[in-house]
Amino acid sequence: MSDAIDYAEIIRDYEETPFHIWMGLKVTRADAGGVEVTIPWRDEFYAQKRRVYMHGGVLASVVDLVADLAIAAKIGRALPTIDLRTDYHRANPGTAMRATGDVIKAGRTIVTAEAHVFDMAGNLLASGRGAYLNAR
Amino acid sequence: MSDAIDYAEIIRDYEETPFHIWMGLKVTRADAGGVEVTIPWRDEFYAQKRRVYMHGGVLASVVDLVADLAIAAKIGRALPTIDLRTDYHRANPGTAMRATGDVIKAGRTIVTAEAHVFDMAGNLLASGRGAYLNAR
Amino acid sequence: MSDAIDYAEIIRDYEETPFHIWMGLKVTRADAGGVEVTIPWRDEFYAQKRRVYMHGGVLASVVDLVADLAIAAKIGRALPTIDLRTDYHRANPGTAMRATGDVIKAGRTIVTAEAHVFDMAGNLLASGRGAYLNAR
Amino acid sequence: MSDAIDYAEIIRDYEETPFHIWMGLKVTRADAGGVEVTIPWRDEFYAQKRRVYMHGGVLASVVDLVADLAIAAKIGRALPTIDLRTDYHRANPGTAMRATGDVIKAGRTIVTAEAHVFDMAGNLLASGRGAYLNAR
Repeated sequence: MSDAIDYAEIIRDYEETPFHIWMGLKVTRADAGGVEVTIPWRDEFYAQKRRVYMHGGVLASVVDLVADLAIAAKIGRALPTIDLRTDYHRANPGTAMRATGDVIKAGRTIVTAEAHVFDMAGNLLASGRGAYLNAR
Repeated sequence: MSDAIDYAEIIRDYEETPFHIWMGLKVTRADAGGVEVTIPWRDEFYAQKRRVYMHGGVLASVVDLVADLAIAAKIGRALPTIDLRTDYHRANPGTAMRATGDVIKAGRTIVTAEAHVFDMAGNLLASGRGAYLNAR
Repeated sequence: MSDAIDYAEIIRDYEETPFHIWMGLKVTRADAGGVEVTIPWRDEFYAQKRRVYMHGGVLASVVDLVADLAIAAKIGRALPTIDLRTDYHRANPGTAMRATGDVIKAGRTIVTAEAHVFDMAGNLLASGRGAYLNAR
Repeated sequence: MSDAIDYAEIIRDYEETPFHIWMGLKVTRADAGGVEVTIPWRDEFYAQKRRVYMHGGVLASVVDLVADLAIAAKIGRALPTIDLRTDYHRANPGTAMRATGDVIKAGRTIVTAEAHVFDMAGNLLASGRGAYLNAR
């Protein structure tokens, strides 16, 4: 049914939610072939008073939102997160991000999706996966 | 060695990091007996254009930061997150939060800590745990 | 409705499943106040040819089963696992185990429960949590 | 340095550990290109007295061991698990399994690896990822 999915509307929904507007998120791809977002650097992303590294919560947020975007691009709507795992691979001194999402399994009740977050040089900063509830 | 921990400095460090300033985080307790933070509502926390529920990334952020604060109050300094799990227990239409953190195990190399996030009426919104790297 | 729960039947079901029989699991407590199991040591639990430490899969299995037992003692039946997280706190050279389980949140659709696994001297070997599907 | 890795010894170590012998595990591939194991069905894998579905602990065990095997094939030795996440995608009425492992990130201190577990018809039964400690 993916031909019935309104990708333009999904992108608009994603870019216009308050949290994503604050982040500066842009959806650079959302179609049957995959999803990708970019997020510019903001100084509010720092996790230390001395401004050394990005906050883990920002990276967890990106994993959650891009995994859910992958679900929206696959089944036509975003789903509520049941739980989320994020792995941190590389501390970074503040950088814009590019992130991709993929559906691992689209079950009738549970959908599992994963995400990879990179800096603009292509280094993997974080990755993770979440379980999402496909109930009506 | 907990009597050597400078709780006032830990609290200052936590409240004055850019991400926590943006969130409006206040540390309401950080001592040998436990840690607690409060975070007021911000409209940027909404996850939908139509402003229905809080973004999962915000709750994951709170789990990460309060678990790490529990570590700081236990061993004297915050640690980098290796990985984080967040469980979402209750969708909510926008609310201030109160969160508590506890160390599950303070190992020589790995420290595991958990967090519980509530609304101001005491309902459990989210909980989770993370592994943190205790390396020098 | 916990007075309607047949704890004796839950215990029988748990002790008589093939995997638990193989493990040697005994339910030492399952009532409204909590659940606890014990599992004797088996040499098949070793993770190395040289028989140094217990296999992580055995500890993950104990986390899963005792978290689910806590659910059964709370709502009257075990549920299928959606996903499971296990944290390993202490390598051990082969030991009997005691494990406790607790329900974190019994939602209408999702139930989250946690488990703590100890050696017989009370050292915490592993802990974790899982999301379980409460669908009919 | 992967040309210095003794794959035959890694395979022998994996197949001859007590837990893997009990499971009946065979390593069908372990080289620079990837790892794969097969595990035949055993009736002890059942999770219910009535023998309906495979135990979640068995699938978590397979995720842990094949992710760690992927690490061994990449860096030359297996590592202790820090923590493990397993997602369950499909209940199954007892089946042999085939599983593949991949390293997500081989960091100096933390190595993250993932696993996918299939039945012999190629259906995805479970998947997951773990953080492993690369300390000496």
